[in-house]
Amino acid sequence: MRMSRIVTLTTDFGLQDHYVGTVKAVILGIAPDVRLVDISHEIPAQDVMAGAWVVRNAVDYFPAGTVHLVVVDPGVGTDRNPVAIEIGNQFFVGPDNGIFTLIADKKPYRACKLTNRAFWRDTTSNTFHGRDVFGPVAAHLASGVPLMDLGEPADELTTYRWATPIADKAGIQGWIVHIDHFGNLISNIPEHLVGEALDTGAVKIYVGNTILHETVSSYGHVEDGEPAAYIGSSGMLEIAINKGNASEMLSVRKGAQISVVLQK
Amino acid sequence: MRMSRIVTLTTDFGLQDHYVGTVKAVILGIAPDVRLVDISHEIPAQDVMAGAWVVRNAVDYFPAGTVHLVVVDPGVGTDRNPVAIEIGNQFFVGPDNGIFTLIADKKPYRACKLTNRAFWRDTTSNTFHGRDVFGPVAAHLASGVPLMDLGEPADELTTYRWATPIADKAGIQGWIVHIDHFGNLISNIPEHLVGEALDTGAVKIYVGNTILHETVSSYGHVEDGEPAAYIGSSGMLEIAINKGNASEMLSVRKGAQISVVLQK
Amino acid sequence: MRMSRIVTLTTDFGLQDHYVGTVKAVILGIAPDVRLVDISHEIPAQDVMAGAWVVRNAVDYFPAGTVHLVVVDPGVGTDRNPVAIEIGNQFFVGPDNGIFTLIADKKPYRACKLTNRAFWRDTTSNTFHGRDVFGPVAAHLASGVPLMDLGEPADELTTYRWATPIADKAGIQGWIVHIDHFGNLISNIPEHLVGEALDTGAVKIYVGNTILHETVSSYGHVEDGEPAAYIGSSGMLEIAINKGNASEMLSVRKGAQISVVLQK
Repeated sequence: MRMSRIVTLTTDFGLQDHYVGTVKAVILGIAPDVRLVDISHEIPAQDVMAGAWVVRNAVDYFPAGTVHLVVVDPGVGTDRNPVAIEIGNQFFVGPDNGIFTLIADKKPYRACKLTNRAFWRDTTSNTFHGRDVFGPVAAHLASGVPLMDLGEPADELTTYRWATPIADKAGIQGWIVHIDHFGNLISNIPEHLVGEALDTGAVKIYVGNTILHETVSSYGHVEDGEPAAYIGSSGMLEIAINKGNASEMLSVRKGAQISVVLQK
Repeated sequence: MRMSRIVTLTTDFGLQDHYVGTVKAVILGIAPDVRLVDISHEIPAQDVMAGAWVVRNAVDYFPAGTVHLVVVDPGVGTDRNPVAIEIGNQFFVGPDNGIFTLIADKKPYRACKLTNRAFWRDTTSNTFHGRDVFGPVAAHLASGVPLMDLGEPADELTTYRWATPIADKAGIQGWIVHIDHFGNLISNIPEHLVGEALDTGAVKIYVGNTILHETVSSYGHVEDGEPAAYIGSSGMLEIAINKGNASEMLSVRKGAQISVVLQK
Repeated sequence: MRMSRIVTLTTDFGLQDHYVGTVKAVILGIAPDVRLVDISHEIPAQDVMAGAWVVRNAVDYFPAGTVHLVVVDPGVGTDRNPVAIEIGNQFFVGPDNGIFTLIADKKPYRACKLTNRAFWRDTTSNTFHGRDVFGPVAAHLASGVPLMDLGEPADELTTYRWATPIADKAGIQGWIVHIDHFGNLISNIPEHLVGEALDTGAVKIYVGNTILHETVSSYGHVEDGEPAAYIGSSGMLEIAINKGNASEMLSVRKGAQISVVLQK
């Protein structure tokens, strides 16, 4: 039994309009057997890097051959390129506006500029390429159309410099790159940078006006209402409040600095 | 290979309660192979015409034979009729309260009053016909039950007068009929009414306190933060702010007037 | 034709992050043919009993063999037990923290503590057991793994005392246990306690500062803007405002008292 290909959807379309349903209609018209999986349609409007973050955290868990449709597209109708990409065993379709930054810098990729209009809808609007270009192309890709049939090779993808933490012997300077639904503060400091400090417990962590003197394995290991520092499920240093909302209670927003000072 | 029938869902149920999941449970109990596609569950509570607008914009993109379950039903448990309708190659199930206004005035239709309780749940509540009447009927319709077996013919559907733009040689007077997730202002002025003006560029557009002196192909063609007028993906004249929220920034709400003055 | 098993998802993950999509990715990697049905991902963060209420109201409508993944898990990473349960012809997977209270007290059950790591992901985080433990276990259960292979028998589940209404000959004292998306006030007073009073109409209902002098079959039977008392689709006494939001207009919140006084 051949399993159906999966097509995931990540957009900033929200859920109140007809937009998401319409993209799915077009996909199912072309590829009636695909499995549609919503990752999120609540990427903040036109926030390309917020979309990049969500994609980065989801894609590694999908089966080989999954096609990821990613549409956060403030430049729709201008000269930004529509692209399809193969990275590892996954495929991606969307605008080449930086949204693939966090996956394109992890592994080698092959990219194709979507110039072959045979795989678009017959009529194409100027403002809804999710329905008219990206959805149809994702459906054709999931149906087995080879990547390079979709257009012409794209040598290099648009990528943005992502905030990289600064580490030296005294410590690590990072940033809060995402506040999740629970108000947890997710930093750009990966486990390997703080691993040793975590093991020895010899660490001070500064974020906003708060200083944490230890790390724990999970927020459930501190008292209710207390802040906790731990390696989260994205592999990054996170700060949470046990049974509370850290962003609100500590008044820390996306972009805030977080410092880890090692105690030798 | 026979493709599975699609059943779409459009409701004002929201996503925090068990309501949507329960309707899907009932459908899958009757028709285990249908494809369920959510269009929106965030129609404003009991706003029948907002639901009509979303349905109007989504249905044309679905494959032939799709069954659209549409439940915005402030009169549940009263004497409004439950109906099923065939329009073009699509089917619709829901309350006959005006929600089918914008699709029933486009094409001829056949309608059936749902009086055959053999296709309802055995026990029927007075306040949740999505679960007890419309869901089961949609599932049976998707399983191949003929439309007219569901009850008795309904001669005429309830429709509301929809705001129609007023056009004369001086210009067009229309209304903002929808504000989308991005804050874009969608009018009821179709492309064909403004087509010539758009081609020549000889146009002034008034909305709220703002005057636009030209139209563009997409909002991406004006500066960031500037308003743009263009034909949107619904085929209607729209106003957006490039990388901004036009409803908030121009302080224009649903129902506002929009005037197009042709310059001869 | 064998129908695919259904796996439902009820969580407090929200829809803006990658969390829900990632759990689905893991499930589909293990059980590519299951049907995924979202019940709700908008359970208030870490509100175990709110999750219990939604699960209680949805599960009876699903086909036999459905697996319900329920993750509202403030104690993730601590010593609360992960469990799988068989109740009637349905299966449940989640943390044993009281979230199964309202289904476990209805029928006999068999429960299994999830100690067999062969059915978990290879690497397991301390804060995302939806992805690393519960999702994989739900997928294996839906694929036919016997319940008791997942670990060792759990004799007793954690349950909380749920507010039970107090009834005597003078009347019934209950509580508002849920405010739904429409602002309807859902009490813990079941139909059988008020049935006779409803039939005779000899009843006064007090909630907040409002007194209702009768019950109706549906809110559509009172004037627009008026409050109505009726037996709702959950089988409980509810208070709604016809075409309005009862919680806002009557200023009644979850936990408020509701009294039914019988008039002899």
